[in-house]
Amino acid sequence: MSDTKRSTRPVVAVVGGGQLARMMQESAIALGIELRALVEARDGSTGQAVVEAPVGEPDDPAAVAALVRGADVLTFEHEHVPQSLLARLPPTLSVNPPPAALRFAQDKLAMRERLRELEVPCPRWARLETPDDLTRFGEEVGWPVIVKTPVGGYDGHGVRVARGPGAVDDWFREVDGPLLAEEKVPFSSEVAALLARRPSGEIRSWPVAQTIQAGGVCSAVIAPAPLLAPDAARQAREIGEAIAQELGVTGVLAVEMFVVEDEDGTGQRVLVNELAMRPHNSGHWTIDGSVTSQFEQHLRAVLDLPLGDTATRASSSVMVNLLGSSFEDPSQGLARALAVSSDVRVHLYGKSVRPGRKLGHVTVCGEDLTEARALAEEAVAALRGESLDR
Amino acid sequence: MSDTKRSTRPVVAVVGGGQLARMMQESAIALGIELRALVEARDGSTGQAVVEAPVGEPDDPAAVAALVRGADVLTFEHEHVPQSLLARLPPTLSVNPPPAALRFAQDKLAMRERLRELEVPCPRWARLETPDDLTRFGEEVGWPVIVKTPVGGYDGHGVRVARGPGAVDDWFREVDGPLLAEEKVPFSSEVAALLARRPSGEIRSWPVAQTIQAGGVCSAVIAPAPLLAPDAARQAREIGEAIAQELGVTGVLAVEMFVVEDEDGTGQRVLVNELAMRPHNSGHWTIDGSVTSQFEQHLRAVLDLPLGDTATRASSSVMVNLLGSSFEDPSQGLARALAVSSDVRVHLYGKSVRPGRKLGHVTVCGEDLTEARALAEEAVAALRGESLDR
Repeated sequence: MSDTKRSTRPVVAVVGGGQLARMMQESAIALGIELRALVEARDGSTGQAVVEAPVGEPDDPAAVAALVRGADVLTFEHEHVPQSLLARLPPTLSVNPPPAALRFAQDKLAMRERLRELEVPCPRWARLETPDDLTRFGEEVGWPVIVKTPVGGYDGHGVRVARGPGAVDDWFREVDGPLLAEEKVPFSSEVAALLARRPSGEIRSWPVAQTIQAGGVCSAVIAPAPLLAPDAARQAREIGEAIAQELGVTGVLAVEMFVVEDEDGTGQRVLVNELAMRPHNSGHWTIDGSVTSQFEQHLRAVLDLPLGDTATRASSSVMVNLLGSSFEDPSQGLARALAVSSDVRVHLYGKSVRPGRKLGHVTVCGEDLTEARALAEEAVAALRGESLDR
Repeated sequence: MSDTKRSTRPVVAVVGGGQLARMMQESAIALGIELRALVEARDGSTGQAVVEAPVGEPDDPAAVAALVRGADVLTFEHEHVPQSLLARLPPTLSVNPPPAALRFAQDKLAMRERLRELEVPCPRWARLETPDDLTRFGEEVGWPVIVKTPVGGYDGHGVRVARGPGAVDDWFREVDGPLLAEEKVPFSSEVAALLARRPSGEIRSWPVAQTIQAGGVCSAVIAPAPLLAPDAARQAREIGEAIAQELGVTGVLAVEMFVVEDEDGTGQRVLVNELAMRPHNSGHWTIDGSVTSQFEQHLRAVLDLPLGDTATRASSSVMVNLLGSSFEDPSQGLARALAVSSDVRVHLYGKSVRPGRKLGHVTVCGEDLTEARALAEEAVAALRGESLDR
């Protein structure tokens, strides 16, 4: 707790004004937690839902200092708060995840180096200082290779498929610092391990989910992952928990992984792709499909409160993202979406429409995975304003 | 929609700033609905959670007119908006429940008269104009009898047990208008039928729940009602749905009922006690225990959107109210309450502590009713600040 504490209720300050802080607020209200958010716009996704929502930049020390005044905890819905700023926060403030852990979600090269030390299975990778480094790596692992800017990427931004030498020469000129190259993994599916960890050490994992990407953006999630063998699921979960513990992550951690089939067809193994130290798109299904949602669990974890049950509420949960809409606002499709089935669970983020933008998601929980997915897709089509006879 | 609509999102205006409008906001955020509330205090239960929360009285025409400007729908978390005010609202505004239905939740004498016309089973009752009317009714049905002020009562306020003639002489002097007398029903348990109805007619009922009262205030709810015979449960549900339809209720309707055992021990029947045309304490279990909570369903119903699935998520849900606390704020007991079990679901209302005040509730869903109830009671004791070795 820092400076003047005005409330007797727990006060959590969050940096970011998107849908993740907005969904944290649903759980904060339920738990009697006072959430305040540093937002990009007062009428944005979070600003619509949080009373104390000052507008400011995540790299503005004055804005962050004002945000945390009187707060018990600082947390984040994205990774864009500079370490230099975090280093100057009051030492009495509980920062979750701590800067020393958050660093590995901010810098993919630091993450790869740390995971190598921990002997966590990863794709082969290299640090690129020059175009020659890329050529050498491509010849070693085979083209194409994946090149990433280590800092600041999201949803496919800052990621490129390099089909040969010279493919990212512009990045070598423009990006300050080295690049990260990774082998293109011949994966059979992608999954995410999701868990929460408290400062005092308790960890709870949800079942590992399958993530389905399109154009570098998550389009759907199925939990539990239907194509994942039990051994690989256990491995994925153990990797997630080891990373949380070794890196000292607090709050929710999502570890995105590739699933690779063994060549003899006898098993699967997983390779770590990305880390996110916050509630993550791969965990939105937990709002409807688990006893405790990732947003509630994140708040409990950052306040070092006992964690909730992560059991599933149905044998399958399918979450489909709403990416763009032909409506002025996707709520214009709400009646049609909800009419698809009384099992359809709609979540809208209050964001203005732009092509491909994440505007909401739909979850359907049920015993029949194929049917659940069809219903979720149909509801999303309604929110996108697609014609009925497509 | 009335006057200038500023938002492309659905706008629901609610009168009242307590925990019911606060819990509506959790669902409004999820559905991308803009909730605004006319509250008693900006920092009260709802004001903490709703950005647009003007302070005003529910009987102030100017305050209500400002609230509904640009709103699609007006709804209520209590019944204290005068009919004279409702009659002057813009005819383009969708008011749910409509004033003609709300009247029967505002005036218990009007409710009794209407239910008699509908032949809905009720306790014997009488309209009392004079003390002699009470004497006559007591001699007819036997003392003691229950006397109620027809308007403005809640949580045991405006209800008295009259053990003989003259017991409410002060009310005859002070209360403007007649009183309502009801026989004291020898009930074996109390239950509540809960449902939602849309303006276009769709009705969905949740399983009938048992309500446990202490001192005129609900202390616990068990869903489905464990002591209710299937025939009586069906009767209770049918009565609820008939009342909703015949009275034209829109939004959530709770019908509180007495369960009376037949004298030959062969069956049960139910008698209607009270109506509430809004989310109700007897339905708080639906947040955790049903696919669709009463708060989400209320919003969907008042916006005439398709209703959600009312199936249960566990074989039993037990909700226990947090009434008062020895803490400055019950969140001081949150860590201990959540440590009781990872199945404990805590809901705090952000209200300042007063003896006996409803400050929150705890729900536990599970297969073992006895265990679920014990866990919920233990978590509530923690939030009340009771010593561990009580």
